[in-house]
Parts: sequence; C-alpha cells; structure tokens
Amino acid sequence: MSYARQMLDTYSRTFNVDADLLAAVIDALSDCAQACDADTAADLGEQNVTEMVTCIRLCLDCADICTATARVTSRQTDYDANVNRPLLEACAAICRSCGDECERHARMHEHCRVCAEACRRCERACRELLGATQ
Amino acid sequence: MSYARQMLDTYSRTFNVDADLLAAVIDALSDCAQACDADTAADLGEQNVTEMVTCIRLCLDCADICTATARVTSRQTDYDANVNRPLLEACAAICRSCGDECERHARMHEHCRVCAEACRRCERACRELLGATQ
Amino acid sequence: MSYARQMLDTYSRTFNVDADLLAAVIDALSDCAQACDADTAADLGEQNVTEMVTCIRLCLDCADICTATARVTSRQTDYDANVNRPLLEACAAICRSCGDECERHARMHEHCRVCAEACRRCERACRELLGATQ
Amino acid sequence: MSYARQMLDTYSRTFNVDADLLAAVIDALSDCAQACDADTAADLGEQNVTEMVTCIRLCLDCADICTATARVTSRQTDYDANVNRPLLEACAAICRSCGDECERHARMHEHCRVCAEACRRCERACRELLGATQ
Repeated sequence: MSYARQMLDTYSRTFNVDADLLAAVIDALSDCAQACDADTAADLGEQNVTEMVTCIRLCLDCADICTATARVTSRQTDYDANVNRPLLEACAAICRSCGDECERHARMHEHCRVCAEACRRCERACRELLGATQ
Repeated sequence: MSYARQMLDTYSRTFNVDADLLAAVIDALSDCAQACDADTAADLGEQNVTEMVTCIRLCLDCADICTATARVTSRQTDYDANVNRPLLEACAAICRSCGDECERHARMHEHCRVCAEACRRCERACRELLGATQ
Repeated sequence: MSYARQMLDTYSRTFNVDADLLAAVIDALSDCAQACDADTAADLGEQNVTEMVTCIRLCLDCADICTATARVTSRQTDYDANVNRPLLEACAAICRSCGDECERHARMHEHCRVCAEACRRCERACRELLGATQ
Repeated sequence: MSYARQMLDTYSRTFNVDADLLAAVIDALSDCAQACDADTAADLGEQNVTEMVTCIRLCLDCADICTATARVTSRQTDYDANVNRPLLEACAAICRSCGDECERHARMHEHCRVCAEACRRCERACRELLGATQ
C-alpha cells in the first residue's frame, strides 16, 4: 500500500472522492514526475540529442506540472473547482503531449517507452479524477 | 532590469507575445511564490494560528502553482494552448482566492497585506497574458 | 517494480552505485515528500493546530528538500561530490528532525505516525547512499 | 524594495541574521533559479545543442536546488545548522559549477553570460550567509 493511500486512510478529507482513486492519482503524478526527470537525463545522454530536443522540453514541463499537481492534490485543501479543474486539465494535456512524443522514440529508446507509459497512466488518472469531481 | 527581462532579450522566443509582458508575468509569479512561502511561515508564528489555517492552506497551494507556472513560462516551450491556458487559469484562480483571504487579515497582519498585494499583481499578470495569447 | 527502478534499467548511469540502492533512495525521497505534504494538511485540520506548528514547519522544509533531492538524484547528472554530498546530508538531517517531531505526535495522530515512518526510511536511504559513494 | 525584503520587515525572525543580507540571498536564489530555467530552454534552442549538454544538466540541477533553498530560506524555520548549512553549501557548489560552465559559453551565447552572472551572484550570497551564521 503506497504512502499516499496510507495517509488518506488516517484523516478525514475535504475532497469528496473515493480514496482509492485519489491515492491512484497522487501515485501516478509522483511516478510521472520522476519518470520525466529521469527521461530528460537519459535523452541528454543519447548520441542523437538534437532529435530529442522536443522530448526534453516536454519532459521538463511535464515534470514541473505533475510535481505541483501532486503537492496540491496531496494536501487536498478545500476543493475549489476554479483551481483544481484547470490544474488537472493542464496536467492531463501535458501528459498527453509528452506521452505522444515519448512514444515516437519508444522503439529506439527504452527509457522513452517507460516514460510514455508513466505519462499515459497519469493522463488517465487525471481525467478520471476530473470525471469524478464534475 | 530583472533577470527574466535580460534573459528574454538574449534569445528568439517561441511564445509570440511582448517581451515586457512576459517578463512582468515571470517576475510576478516568482514574487508571489516567494511572498506566499514567507506568509505561510509568518502565519505559523502568529498567536491566533487557528484563525490563519485557511490562509496557510491557500498560501501553500498558491506557492506551488506559481512556482511551476514560473518555471514553465520561463522555458517558453513551444506554446501549447491546451497546457498553458489552463495552467495560467489555475494560477490566476489560486492567486484570486489567496489574495482574498490574505486581504481579510491585512489590517491585523502586515505580512498578509504584502502577500495580498503580490497575489493581486500576479493574478492581473496571468490574466493579461491569457488575454494576449487568445 | 517502481518507475525509478525501471528507468534506471534502461540507460547507462554516471552515478557509480548499485541500481537497487539508487532506486530505493529515489522512491524513499518521493514517498517522504508526499507524506510530508499530506501530513502538513492533516496537521492543519487538527483541533490542536497550535501544538502542531513545529511539525508543520518541519514537514514543509522536509517536503521541499526531498522533492529537490529526488529530482537531482533522478537525473544523475555527472556525480559531483561537492553538490551531492551536502544535498544528501541536508536531506538526511531534515528527515531526522521531521521524523523526531512526527514521532512525538504519533500516538495522538496516526497521520504523524505514517509520516514519521516515511521520514525514517528516507533518512536511512540517504545515509546508505552517502556511505556507498564515499 | 523586493517582496522578500518587504516580507522580512513585517515579522520577527528566528534566523538571527541581518535582514538586508537575508533578503539579498532570497532574491539571488529566485533570480538564479529563473535564469537557469530560461538558460536551459535557450540552450535547447541552439544549433550546437550537443555541445550544450553539460550546461543543460547543470542548469537543471542548479534550478532545482536554488528553488528549494529559496523556499526553505523564505520560511526561516527555526534555524537548524545541520539542515541549513549543508543545503547552502550544496547550493553554493552547484552555482559554482553551473556558473563555470555557463561562462565557457558566454562569448558564444549571451543567455549563458547572463546566467553565469546570476550563478556568481547567488554563489556569493550563499557563502556570505554561511559566513554570517557560523
């Protein structure tokens, strides 16, 4: 059981959504941020780094947005749709773009394949949370 | 001249907006993040900390979202409206909420007055950038 | 298998340490940052928030330092002892302080018990990496 | 007057150091983080990106470490030498390395010249604070 899930079990929440879903979103956000940071470094170590520039740029934005969204979602401040919805939408959008670009390099670079998978999972989780809080 | 403005002058940008506006947004985001972190600590040092809980929560979210938005905006990756617009909207919304709450404590706590000002300026800057990139 | 471990398996590293240890450190850092963010929010929701002020302060510093250390360690830039050693030392020290304080509240607040555990695990992981890179 | 300085004037601090110095450190950290993020993006836009790989790697680490140090220093939690000293040392060390690398490209790339200046100023500020808190 992840720390996100354990922490959610210990206190009453203001976010009125299923704890399993919320924990899955937080874990997917942390994993995606980590994968994007690692993929950035791996891309920079490739010989064809010029071809990896778009991938690096997207990984950098994705890591920053996922990190902030993970922190805000972990704290579950009084849910404010005006803040949380566009933040999750921005996060889903960058995970989509970053996942698409990583997938283009997936056959060539195994690190991009793993990162694409983390982005896909995170995009799905963000969209599921958006659906559950409508 | 701020570093944000100096850096913008040194390279051709992909964001098709006025450099003065872009630099003002980046500076306002950094200032707001810093003010919110400082206000969090100042709130925690007040005797009536129980009354400051909402202010602390909002400052924490505002600092995280401003920090991420500052980093993404500083890098000016190929502008993607699906990412940048909701991110700026989330940022403007949390600056609005945080500014409103800080203003409620402005007469009692000078640190909240200064933080409210930083939030207002950041909200305006984000909305101006949103207007300029429509 | 965590994403950190999967990513490490996909590319040759510059950090000359065991991949299992490195992945364990990255995972412990991410978990600790997340637990500290969640604990901050949980502390702010307690009735005796005045007694939780020190815990909140330490959780905030711990979350920021663990987040940065996780990102730097995930990228494994050319290992530079002048940067990496003091960063890991700062991280181990804040995990120690934060874990001690959380433990003081562990019997009263289950969320502090879980957070203390995440801090202890992270402190151990940082010290093990420091030992392995001497 | 920067927001860091204004905020410091509004509340009694636990860090027993001169407010001018503390504000200068916080501003230098924020500026350096911003310059490094902007320089990363500018490097990625250069034709000779392969030659900029080391500069990009160092800018990424420098931005993350400066961001965390700015946040921790802005909050001025009860000063703990075991945490604050190694954190400032890690920060000074990465600013040194990143400033050296940026300087190597300063004649070729104006953005690296500006970033080197931000790194130098930040390194000096961190070392001055280390000296003042001995």
